[in-house]
Amino acid sequence: MRLVIVGGVAGGMSAAARARRLDETAEIIVLDRGEHVSFANCGLPYYVGGEITDPGALLVQTPERLRSSLNLDVRTRHVMIGIDTDVRELTVRTPVGVEQIGYDALVLSPGAAAVRPDVPGIDSPRVRTLRTVDDALALRGRVTGGAARAIVIGAGFIGVEAAEALAQQGIATTLVQRSAQVLPPLEAEHAWPVTRELQRLGIDVRTGTTVQRIEPGMDEDTLTLSDGTTITAGLIVLAAGVRPDTEVFEQAGITCENGAIVTDEHGRTSAPRVWAVGDATVSTDPITGARRPVTLAGPANRAGRLIADDILRPETARPLPRPLGTAIIRVGDLTAALTGANRGELDHAGIPAHTLHLHPNQHAGYFPGAAQVHLTVHVHAGDGRILGAQAHGTDGVDKRIDVLATAIRAGMRVDDLIDLDLAYAPPYGQAKDPINLAGMLGENVLTGTLALWDARDLEGVRERSLILDVRTDAEVATGVLPGALHMPHIELRDRLDEVRDAAAGRPVRVMCASGVRSAIAHRVLAQSGFDSASLSGGVLTLRAALGPDADTVLVAPGVMQHA
Amino acid sequence: MRLVIVGGVAGGMSAAARARRLDETAEIIVLDRGEHVSFANCGLPYYVGGEITDPGALLVQTPERLRSSLNLDVRTRHVMIGIDTDVRELTVRTPVGVEQIGYDALVLSPGAAAVRPDVPGIDSPRVRTLRTVDDALALRGRVTGGAARAIVIGAGFIGVEAAEALAQQGIATTLVQRSAQVLPPLEAEHAWPVTRELQRLGIDVRTGTTVQRIEPGMDEDTLTLSDGTTITAGLIVLAAGVRPDTEVFEQAGITCENGAIVTDEHGRTSAPRVWAVGDATVSTDPITGARRPVTLAGPANRAGRLIADDILRPETARPLPRPLGTAIIRVGDLTAALTGANRGELDHAGIPAHTLHLHPNQHAGYFPGAAQVHLTVHVHAGDGRILGAQAHGTDGVDKRIDVLATAIRAGMRVDDLIDLDLAYAPPYGQAKDPINLAGMLGENVLTGTLALWDARDLEGVRERSLILDVRTDAEVATGVLPGALHMPHIELRDRLDEVRDAAAGRPVRVMCASGVRSAIAHRVLAQSGFDSASLSGGVLTLRAALGPDADTVLVAPGVMQHA
Repeated sequence: MRLVIVGGVAGGMSAAARARRLDETAEIIVLDRGEHVSFANCGLPYYVGGEITDPGALLVQTPERLRSSLNLDVRTRHVMIGIDTDVRELTVRTPVGVEQIGYDALVLSPGAAAVRPDVPGIDSPRVRTLRTVDDALALRGRVTGGAARAIVIGAGFIGVEAAEALAQQGIATTLVQRSAQVLPPLEAEHAWPVTRELQRLGIDVRTGTTVQRIEPGMDEDTLTLSDGTTITAGLIVLAAGVRPDTEVFEQAGITCENGAIVTDEHGRTSAPRVWAVGDATVSTDPITGARRPVTLAGPANRAGRLIADDILRPETARPLPRPLGTAIIRVGDLTAALTGANRGELDHAGIPAHTLHLHPNQHAGYFPGAAQVHLTVHVHAGDGRILGAQAHGTDGVDKRIDVLATAIRAGMRVDDLIDLDLAYAPPYGQAKDPINLAGMLGENVLTGTLALWDARDLEGVRERSLILDVRTDAEVATGVLPGALHMPHIELRDRLDEVRDAAAGRPVRVMCASGVRSAIAHRVLAQSGFDSASLSGGVLTLRAALGPDADTVLVAPGVMQHA
Repeated sequence: MRLVIVGGVAGGMSAAARARRLDETAEIIVLDRGEHVSFANCGLPYYVGGEITDPGALLVQTPERLRSSLNLDVRTRHVMIGIDTDVRELTVRTPVGVEQIGYDALVLSPGAAAVRPDVPGIDSPRVRTLRTVDDALALRGRVTGGAARAIVIGAGFIGVEAAEALAQQGIATTLVQRSAQVLPPLEAEHAWPVTRELQRLGIDVRTGTTVQRIEPGMDEDTLTLSDGTTITAGLIVLAAGVRPDTEVFEQAGITCENGAIVTDEHGRTSAPRVWAVGDATVSTDPITGARRPVTLAGPANRAGRLIADDILRPETARPLPRPLGTAIIRVGDLTAALTGANRGELDHAGIPAHTLHLHPNQHAGYFPGAAQVHLTVHVHAGDGRILGAQAHGTDGVDKRIDVLATAIRAGMRVDDLIDLDLAYAPPYGQAKDPINLAGMLGENVLTGTLALWDARDLEGVRERSLILDVRTDAEVATGVLPGALHMPHIELRDRLDEVRDAAAGRPVRVMCASGVRSAIAHRVLAQSGFDSASLSGGVLTLRAALGPDADTVLVAPGVMQHA
């Protein structure tokens, strides 16, 4: 049995290793177009930034070690240029010529290639992607070589990591992003804090902007942006996304869709005895049903293993899970993470959802180092299932997103989160963990005990409602919505008549700092017959969602009197 | 509607707060025997140790704030001394006399009292429990007053936290524990590393030892231990466990079992309109079915909320979940945590289980700060469900235990862990997270792809098998099992005949450092017809499970030649 694997990183190498564990006798050949296999692709930005100091550490495995430990035949600098699925044979360009390699089973793990925007000058030698060990070595060389200015094109995960890495090395760094915010999969209320953190690190963040032209210069290139400004930089990182290169597969008659390989639930392509895995394949979103490639290392690694099972013991192989797209990024002191669907994807798919916002401490408030986890959870408005979640904060973010990713995979309803027995001691959590609190909040919304209003609907709410601000005097001094009625929540029970007069028949929309006191106030109002709702996540979420506009929307309290 | 709640901490106060949110009109009275309500009982050791500096921070709420925010009538120093469930009336001793208080609904949240061993001298004024704010203030006073020597009686969670707190303040501290290890719910392979960490902190740990006698002295008491030694100490913390004080409830005819109040799935006692919550109630273990009180803040807080639901909107109230007993402790630089059943509980319940041990890094190995998470997972040998898990390490332990607690609650099988989309970037995890790896290991065991042998069975294995040590030369220099055959795993494929000769028909039991290479070796051997198995968790688990005996069992490699 000869198993040939094209692509020796992530999914491909996982398939190879698993195949050997299952079958000592198989011949296993791994072909890779690059110099290295099984390298730490997710570690490259940290090497550029000097946080990982040993380039050898990026090489998780070498062909020699894979040979001695797992008896794998690993061939680097081998580029597959053709497949004949009828005779089961590959055409491969090697360092010494072109050769044919037959297979009994074939795993395609070719990855994806960087998108190169159609911009004059994009082929400047100062423009470099960050996809391979060679890329990282070259960029690191320019960093230590004294580059003064850098520009990163694209503020996705790799672009943001690259920008931070360069800025941390003292390089004046500009981050250019076509869309309106960095990290497009994030909700606005999480993306804006990331932008602020990038700015704190000294990075010039230009969203809603594209590069129009790159002109070579003596020491630096000059980039002209869509806003008309120009920037010079000696180091340009191209991180505008990736796209599978499926031409050779399509020529071989393997079914593709939107430029990615279509596979069944076992990773099988349309061709017999040909499987595919990773960035080049289409996945179905388990929440929205959307079909798109998921370019993440985790799902690829795990799918590679399952594909080896399907090749070597098909009768018991489990199906590949539909990836949730859980992702995480460290930006300065912040962590931002997401799992499942975001609001835009839910809206696009027409899935009715409640969106919860909360800001609990990551551990007991009385224990040193307490810090808020800013959490968004989307809940199916019908059956209460958790559809997606996002969070940012300085500590405890990864844990909560992982618990929520587990809960989503388990098909849990939001109120199931109440019952989770999470590990509590003061340095680690709260007796009511942020996850439990999200469950309680969600249950209150599903049962109608709590009605929420959303920062996204601010304009309409201001037009039609009395906004009741139940924060303390000291808190409102930091900025208020003009026209809001201010009444600390502890006074509400005694001042309901004032609220009734001010509302004059309009609904009352309550707000506080984080949504806790406004929820209490809502209960008082609702039980007194008011049409009431509580601002989801309070001013903390409102400010983050408004982003740079927050300081014009929330004004000095004196203005409130004149509204 | 008058709701009376007896006990204003954790479950009681959660019930009170929830009740108010549901019902503005109810009269809600909270009685507490102590000076303070809703205090940070889990924070007390950290105040004693000076990590929490402001005693005010321990008071999460005050009666005044609870009145103004939630309109609760909180009465401290009120001790319930009788219940008449027929006329629905309590007899209460107050600071000014005895009074009767009627109720429409009653919630009992009395907590538990410290166990006081029947030891001469236990009533010495130098002996103090650590259950209340007053206890913490008194102990802190003695710490800052210059106590030189301390003894902590009982190495459960509070005892260990107290011992660390005292040692960190420079006090010579002895920790005495009746059973053979600290933190009895932990498996030996997790308890021993905790002991070593306590020793590193300078604590004199005496397990398998009890206090026989306490004799008062001028500046210090003298304690005589069961091993005949004596210790003097100016400060003695009694942390030998807790027991509910149910006498008053039993007198009132409320059904109790093994000294704790019996409730149904909604927290209802045997008496009409009387509910109970927290340390004084019996819970059923969801894994083993064992019935015992669970003295943890988290389940109590959440159960209190559900009880308020059952009182005020019984038609939609959800049942109380059966608590898994998830717990966590910080000891020096270590974290140790557990969820679900441990091995002893599974054995006692007669539940057949596989036990997995693994030691993956908490994040990418090439990223700075990589550290192992030492993980034990119990899996049902029949249906593959996850039954329990424990872990220790310096980072990432709480996250993995929380994910596993969520998976157990969801009823997941161990192989479902493979599919979890956990958040991966190099600072946070691995493309194959420790949790995914546990799933892969478990699947391999369930399908027979991997056979394990356990450190607990070392003696029998040594008698009947060839032990094959596949570590490198450098590794075996740190200690080997006499009689083992040493052969680095990468040489195994070429030296199978040597193994066959040495085995002479016996089974081959493979071992390496952590269980990864021995699993690869097992696959090679099994596919070559050997009766083979891999040491679960390798030498890392073996050493931890052997504890102080490890250095006599694993000896200098020269000895191997003579075996």
